[in-house]
Amino acid sequence: MSMIITIGREFGSGGRELGKRIAEQLGIAYYDKEIVMEISKKTDLAYDYVHQIVEQKPIVYYPITIGTSFSAVGTNVNKNSTSIYVEQSNVIKEMAQKSDCVIVGRCADYILKDMNPFRIFVYSDMPSKIKRCREKGEVDQNLNDRKLARMIKGIDRNRSRYYEFYTSLKWGDPLNYDLMINTSNKTIKEVVNEIVKIVK
Amino acid sequence: MSMIITIGREFGSGGRELGKRIAEQLGIAYYDKEIVMEISKKTDLAYDYVHQIVEQKPIVYYPITIGTSFSAVGTNVNKNSTSIYVEQSNVIKEMAQKSDCVIVGRCADYILKDMNPFRIFVYSDMPSKIKRCREKGEVDQNLNDRKLARMIKGIDRNRSRYYEFYTSLKWGDPLNYDLMINTSNKTIKEVVNEIVKIVK
Repeated sequence: MSMIITIGREFGSGGRELGKRIAEQLGIAYYDKEIVMEISKKTDLAYDYVHQIVEQKPIVYYPITIGTSFSAVGTNVNKNSTSIYVEQSNVIKEMAQKSDCVIVGRCADYILKDMNPFRIFVYSDMPSKIKRCREKGEVDQNLNDRKLARMIKGIDRNRSRYYEFYTSLKWGDPLNYDLMINTSNKTIKEVVNEIVKIVK
Repeated sequence: MSMIITIGREFGSGGRELGKRIAEQLGIAYYDKEIVMEISKKTDLAYDYVHQIVEQKPIVYYPITIGTSFSAVGTNVNKNSTSIYVEQSNVIKEMAQKSDCVIVGRCADYILKDMNPFRIFVYSDMPSKIKRCREKGEVDQNLNDRKLARMIKGIDRNRSRYYEFYTSLKWGDPLNYDLMINTSNKTIKEVVNEIVKIVK
């Protein structure tokens, strides 16, 4: 039986690192943004544009002043993001059929449900997310904690909307996952070691 | 460093079995009802009475016809259940200090928070809980699924109230646990194997 592990994750929870470590330990394939790259090649859309739609919202609402009418723009972008989602689903299925793998994000748990994936969700409290973001150096150091927290919440709100839009399920609801891992106040290495310890 | 594993669990989720298996695999002590027994010995109350209070509600409301007045009875039982909780906390702390252990239920995650326990919560969807309850043969076979579901929900509501009453935390809230394990459609053996597989 094939081993497919999907990882949903809150922003700043270390889900990507956990996914990579698991894939490394098991010696299986790992996917996240590569999937988006693949999609962008197939649909011939610019990578940045695809990335923006996939990462941010199922429906991107541009300011009304840009388009001819709000609803027209909405419909147009909606069509694009839905076709990207379909393309993305096909790519994910293709990859999962090709070999055992870990897939981070992209509703992979839902898309691959017929293949019975092991579904992990990684989460964390806000202080730990802030700390992790700062340590990774991907955040403007002038941003204070309050603003950074707002940014993190915003990204998670978008992930949640994206997930719920395409799956009709609640993002982060324990019943949608096999395992929920709390990474608060811990390094990902520690988390893996802890779980190893209890199931050794 | 000592290893303390606490397990919160929904009724019918297999949390006790998981706790026992973990304790066995790690070769450490396992506690659940034994603690209540210990308490009952110490406080000199009948086991059944203690068990009823600890298992069901922080405040047991007897029908108004039994006592002199509703509030008087409530206060009285409240006092008893609080003193039992304090006693229970002491016993749990004593045991955790004595040796590495797995403790199921009893707000142990909260009581032992200064000892930095690894906090697990075990949950499951309703059909799996019903199936598990029937398989264990602890349920009246004449009880239909709807009634059994109501009974299960009632027990969990009591556990939730008990936990929230003494910890001021939300029972089952992912942020209160290090690991949340979904046992829906699975045997506990399978669950352990799955986790072993991903962290091997």
